[in-house]
Amino acid sequence: MANFYIDTITVAHELPNNDRPKFYMFGVPSYTNMGDQAVALAERKYIENEFPEYQYIEIIEEDDDAAIPVVQKNLQPRDIIAFTGGGNMGNLYHNHEEARRKVFSTFTDNLTISFPQSIHFEDNEDGAAEKKKSQEAYSKNPNLVLVARDAQSFHRMQRTFRNPVIFTPDMVLYMNSVDWKFKRNGALFVLRHDTEKVVKQSTIDNVKNLLDETLPVERVDTVLDEPSTITPITRETLYEAELELFSHQNIIITDRWHAMVFSVLTGTPCLLFGNSYGKGKHAYMDWLEYVNWIDYTDEEDTERIKKLMQSLIVQKRHSYDVKRSFQQLRDTISHYAED
Amino acid sequence: MANFYIDTITVAHELPNNDRPKFYMFGVPSYTNMGDQAVALAERKYIENEFPEYQYIEIIEEDDDAAIPVVQKNLQPRDIIAFTGGGNMGNLYHNHEEARRKVFSTFTDNLTISFPQSIHFEDNEDGAAEKKKSQEAYSKNPNLVLVARDAQSFHRMQRTFRNPVIFTPDMVLYMNSVDWKFKRNGALFVLRHDTEKVVKQSTIDNVKNLLDETLPVERVDTVLDEPSTITPITRETLYEAELELFSHQNIIITDRWHAMVFSVLTGTPCLLFGNSYGKGKHAYMDWLEYVNWIDYTDEEDTERIKKLMQSLIVQKRHSYDVKRSFQQLRDTISHYAED
Repeated sequence: MANFYIDTITVAHELPNNDRPKFYMFGVPSYTNMGDQAVALAERKYIENEFPEYQYIEIIEEDDDAAIPVVQKNLQPRDIIAFTGGGNMGNLYHNHEEARRKVFSTFTDNLTISFPQSIHFEDNEDGAAEKKKSQEAYSKNPNLVLVARDAQSFHRMQRTFRNPVIFTPDMVLYMNSVDWKFKRNGALFVLRHDTEKVVKQSTIDNVKNLLDETLPVERVDTVLDEPSTITPITRETLYEAELELFSHQNIIITDRWHAMVFSVLTGTPCLLFGNSYGKGKHAYMDWLEYVNWIDYTDEEDTERIKKLMQSLIVQKRHSYDVKRSFQQLRDTISHYAED
Repeated sequence: MANFYIDTITVAHELPNNDRPKFYMFGVPSYTNMGDQAVALAERKYIENEFPEYQYIEIIEEDDDAAIPVVQKNLQPRDIIAFTGGGNMGNLYHNHEEARRKVFSTFTDNLTISFPQSIHFEDNEDGAAEKKKSQEAYSKNPNLVLVARDAQSFHRMQRTFRNPVIFTPDMVLYMNSVDWKFKRNGALFVLRHDTEKVVKQSTIDNVKNLLDETLPVERVDTVLDEPSTITPITRETLYEAELELFSHQNIIITDRWHAMVFSVLTGTPCLLFGNSYGKGKHAYMDWLEYVNWIDYTDEEDTERIKKLMQSLIVQKRHSYDVKRSFQQLRDTISHYAED
């Protein structure tokens, strides 16, 4: 039996019985990657703020299969189907891609939105086989709109699929910035343990040695060890705890794109290194290059890295504006909602 | 009296008298920057290939003022107004920006397209004053669509103007590639002389010394010294001569974005350095990063530059696909043309 998360605090096994049009978000993470959790949180905030006439209903990924027939039975013409964004379209995470195919190829009569994603099908046998399956599934839905969160992904989606592709920032950049004015005292390494990791351990060790001389240094990942799962009801508290952690740091060293986003939101200096296919680099270049207190690098030379960090730490916060760039998503939903 | 360039080979002082809908392209360059000339050529090819029902009429920039009242008198509801693309929206080239304002604020009842551009208003008094004038002019046209040719410009246009913004590659990437299999023997430096130049002379000298040992080295600019002007009738021959020049080189060293594009089209290894506001860097990252025989760098270290060049020179050509990424432009025109 599927759980439906309705209006942030309600979880039910049945869909609400009212006249409001529904916005169904499938594939919502229950795993503890705070980047993906922040995406899911921002998606809810976005729809609830910008399209308040819609009732927003989340389905966590494990419940997708059980929820599909229930949603099918209740579906009305103005309802919108969506699949959560993040950074996992492609063949690196088979489970997510399979769930996406199933949702896209099922609800073919309603506007279906693949929320802002990066995409990477590897140039090997698995990549080619998975790409073919996705092409077949996506092509069944004439009402499917793909949203790319960086220009590299925009271009790749257009080369891979026949569906229309629109271009917006990562959803977490829709969240408001915070300025809690905590005393900052520390350097935080936020590093991957997964298959996307490419930054060399020797580079990390060198940077750590540099910082060790002046600041308390800690290492974490944006994937939490506990709790073991997160639901739409518990995630906002954990998201705020994450922003609080960042707000206490002098600098963040990371290879996680969302650690850079949390740094932007909290005004925390941040140096981002690459992952296996450049998703952070491209999103940085596209939306955040003019934000003074963050930077991206592929550099391995310790002296050059030191200079980059020194210049970041002394930067002053300034205003930035990314929200206007959700315009193509807004237009896509508005046109459908008003028809 | 204005000249109207019709069907590539005809120039007339009057507009054609027939039932075909018209596509008017204003601001077409007569100056000898081959990048801007290639843009104008590609714009014509694009509309003539993709929307053959439209009759394509070009107005060179000097004739804009004289042509405006003539076009106004003849304008029909299905006609489309456009202003040529390139890399000059902003306050660096007052004359182009003034011409753009005049066209956009005049033809407010028809679809008006600002063809793919990069944008840069400087962060100074002139930049602020010019930006305000453009905001006022552009806001008068509810049917104006801006097209950005890189993600940085997409984001900047959205922060600067209230008009819808779409995202496509530079128009020259619509041109077909060529493979003339000439013997390659030379290194060509294609370098700016204008205000956008930032690459250091010492860096150029170092690279030149490296190459001098092995190859005949020449320096040119994509801005030709002669002829003194170019018209829509003479430009295709000059464009082909430019591709021929590139096709004879082993490597191109440049700070001109369109020199990189000509290198892509001709399969010529190319290393691109930055300009004053990153337009080449961003366009490279967005559309061409996966093309093996070209690269972008801000590097000043001669040894590192040497390695980059060595790896470019041995790359094999491969296929690439940018044309699918004109989709948003195609949709914009199709929706209007079919209404």
